[in-house]
Amino acid sequence: MTKLEELKERLGVVSDLNGAASVLGWDQQTYMPPGGAAARAEQLATLGRLAHEALISDQVGELLEGAAAEVAGSGADSDESCLLRVVRRDYEKARKVPPALVAEIARATSLGMEIWVRARKESHFPSFQPALQRILDLHRDLAQCLGFEESPYDALLDQYEPGMKKSELVRIFSELKSGLVPLVQSISERLDRVDDAVLRRHYSEKAQWEFGVDVARRLGYDFQRGRQDKSVHPFTTSFSISDVRITTRVDERFLPTALFGTLHECGHALYEQGVSQNLERTPLAGGASLGIHESQSRLWENVVGRSRNFWRFFFPRLQQAFLQSLQDVSLESFYRSINRVEPSLIRVEADEVTYNLHILLRFELEGNLLEGRLALADLPEAWNAGMKESLGIAPPDDAQGVLQDVHWSNGLIGYFPTYSLGNLLSVQLFEKARSVIPSLEAQIDQGNFGPLLAWLRENVHQHGRKFLPLPLVERATGGPLQAAPYLHYLRDKYTEIYF
Amino acid sequence: MTKLEELKERLGVVSDLNGAASVLGWDQQTYMPPGGAAARAEQLATLGRLAHEALISDQVGELLEGAAAEVAGSGADSDESCLLRVVRRDYEKARKVPPALVAEIARATSLGMEIWVRARKESHFPSFQPALQRILDLHRDLAQCLGFEESPYDALLDQYEPGMKKSELVRIFSELKSGLVPLVQSISERLDRVDDAVLRRHYSEKAQWEFGVDVARRLGYDFQRGRQDKSVHPFTTSFSISDVRITTRVDERFLPTALFGTLHECGHALYEQGVSQNLERTPLAGGASLGIHESQSRLWENVVGRSRNFWRFFFPRLQQAFLQSLQDVSLESFYRSINRVEPSLIRVEADEVTYNLHILLRFELEGNLLEGRLALADLPEAWNAGMKESLGIAPPDDAQGVLQDVHWSNGLIGYFPTYSLGNLLSVQLFEKARSVIPSLEAQIDQGNFGPLLAWLRENVHQHGRKFLPLPLVERATGGPLQAAPYLHYLRDKYTEIYF
Repeated sequence: MTKLEELKERLGVVSDLNGAASVLGWDQQTYMPPGGAAARAEQLATLGRLAHEALISDQVGELLEGAAAEVAGSGADSDESCLLRVVRRDYEKARKVPPALVAEIARATSLGMEIWVRARKESHFPSFQPALQRILDLHRDLAQCLGFEESPYDALLDQYEPGMKKSELVRIFSELKSGLVPLVQSISERLDRVDDAVLRRHYSEKAQWEFGVDVARRLGYDFQRGRQDKSVHPFTTSFSISDVRITTRVDERFLPTALFGTLHECGHALYEQGVSQNLERTPLAGGASLGIHESQSRLWENVVGRSRNFWRFFFPRLQQAFLQSLQDVSLESFYRSINRVEPSLIRVEADEVTYNLHILLRFELEGNLLEGRLALADLPEAWNAGMKESLGIAPPDDAQGVLQDVHWSNGLIGYFPTYSLGNLLSVQLFEKARSVIPSLEAQIDQGNFGPLLAWLRENVHQHGRKFLPLPLVERATGGPLQAAPYLHYLRDKYTEIYF
Repeated sequence: MTKLEELKERLGVVSDLNGAASVLGWDQQTYMPPGGAAARAEQLATLGRLAHEALISDQVGELLEGAAAEVAGSGADSDESCLLRVVRRDYEKARKVPPALVAEIARATSLGMEIWVRARKESHFPSFQPALQRILDLHRDLAQCLGFEESPYDALLDQYEPGMKKSELVRIFSELKSGLVPLVQSISERLDRVDDAVLRRHYSEKAQWEFGVDVARRLGYDFQRGRQDKSVHPFTTSFSISDVRITTRVDERFLPTALFGTLHECGHALYEQGVSQNLERTPLAGGASLGIHESQSRLWENVVGRSRNFWRFFFPRLQQAFLQSLQDVSLESFYRSINRVEPSLIRVEADEVTYNLHILLRFELEGNLLEGRLALADLPEAWNAGMKESLGIAPPDDAQGVLQDVHWSNGLIGYFPTYSLGNLLSVQLFEKARSVIPSLEAQIDQGNFGPLLAWLRENVHQHGRKFLPLPLVERATGGPLQAAPYLHYLRDKYTEIYF
């Protein structure tokens, strides 16, 4: 056995343990009876600990050295070279963090989640503040352990978006914000141009489910290598490249919940199903980053799924499935209703135009908190002022403001910006695909998503985690990550709808 | 931390890994898409290997020694003393088998299963013979590693029924057989006394499912700590004492499939749900043996579930659920139809009276094979002769004869007798419960299963794996395992039906 083979076998064990943990997590959110919770927490903790121990063992370090010599001639982009690069990165990062700190963060966030749930229910930030302070302090320690050059935020961001820097985000997001704020303002003066009452008619659960499955299948989601189940919070999870599952939830009184939820999760799942089989059972079998992952979900959910082209094909089918609710609705009025814009308080309910302003606010605030330029006690006020400034509205209470998201209580600091990166990139990738496939939109008119999927497979999916996000973007689009294409896309689309 | 605590933490890891593997196995048989199979096999192999390594580590041996001193004064029946006894037994057995032999058996049985599937399809034993020979030889080696006093069969049997000896089974089974054969013969002359055509009417899947769930709930199966799903082969599995799941399959043209399947699995599940919470996350959280487990499934499926008392309560409900198919059927004729006896070729379709003769034949044959008193080439002939002798019928081909069961191809040698032990014991336990709860049958008439379940919980379930099967039987029934009560039960019940 070569050192590389030996290393791959060890990494295979890590991959098996992570895959098993994902099955347990999926079961927990879909079918597990209430009684199963306590044992499940123990099982997941054990699997996580064993996977971590297997990765950080000295033997992995030695095998990395030995294997490096073996793959020296294989080229920087070969599967083997990329594997060693990524594993060395994972290995070194994992070894930098003392187990005691990992345990302390696990405890603090587990407690933090509980306290957050109560604080949100009571809409009272001060009762959450000490727990969040503890979580923030521990994440400052974590950033110190991981190391950084410019800002401790970079160390945390790097966990979700490897290689990305806060300063780079500040640059892109400033441009984004200065384009978005006036756009939102001018749409805000014309809110009555679009009405979405039709989406709140009755849509039977069964028909919604069947329609969603049909859409998923037509997009290219392979049900031989996946399945859809119901869960309270929709998610995508994979146990291998050939077992990638999605979940959805259905609201009989609001059509978009299941519909765009399925499109979103399908986007994630098409990515995971599209990773090259050569990378199976290695740490490269997965998405390059959260931002790249989100670019795939948003591309299918928004850029494709809220386009006229998409509905030229699907609207007659949707009408057929919900005759009673849709027979008096035109394609044009349906298209407008699913693209209704309105500044609102809650991020997860936000439309394409306002969504990123929610993210930008969180990014700014968490950066300031971490760098010590904002005191936690002042956070609610800063939140409300930020909402007023960018969206023109302010939350009446903490529950609809600073307490709305679970992320910070869960220790996810540096995570929010990946949502906006995904949005920006979804448009850049789609534009690139359109430029090389002139018939792309005509194909979508016909319900043919094959050319688009093939382009994404070739340029993004197959590579898995081989490349860092920014080089992958460069490789796929021929240029850097940018805000301009997204702003351009929004202005074109929404000027036509609102003006 | 005491040595005992340290030991329990290590065993907790083993338990977590086994629990995780059970979740993966459950998913594999219920929801996994076809594409998931390859990765699932790897994940299960890794979890199995890690659990095995964690159990047989030298540290466990040292902790066992250290902990023994700590629990010395706690009494032989304390949870702690039993834990050390059982773990020492598991540990020593596991260390006796070289990993290479384990791997070789895994390979041979995985191959053997495939070959068996094809051979059964072609109904051709000779094409399976070399694979079975290899499996037999490896199991002779396994018996040598494990060690035995009287017969290599004892070493294999001990894996499923700890402490049981072949000589003891021969004694009990001879008595059983000499009672069964004449009973079957005399019923065979009166087969036309009972007709089960009514069970083959139409029964909708949905109503069968709902009826089964209602029955399970009334028996005491806790759906907060379990659930029922569909699978091709019904089974029970547990991930902890508080997450014990059952599966069933439904045949719209044969009522007993789902009905008695659910009762059977419920019996297993009530056992697992009834283990004392003090034993959670230890190797004692589970059934004492396969025989004891089967006694619980058979008790609920047959002794209770095919009794007049049970149907006095449930038949009116069943009629209500299936008005069209059952409105012209009386309780009495339904009772007779579900207790129809007929010598048949296939074990899994056999009734209460003939079932054990199928098992006794397999027990005799596998013992002879293992001890070298029967050549594999002569197995089909011996099988057919045995069927003729005990049931009066002979299979027309290998598929309906020697190739019908998966067990041997899967390396399950010494496993079959546990089915009969379960049958015998199901009656012994029920008789004992009846003798201490005089109103037991009157309670069942009213659909009240609480007293019976409480007695089983107290005398069997709560102990988990604390005691070996025979001492547990002694403790619960006040006497040894016997054939006579079962024969008595059958003669009483079936004389009334057939004579």
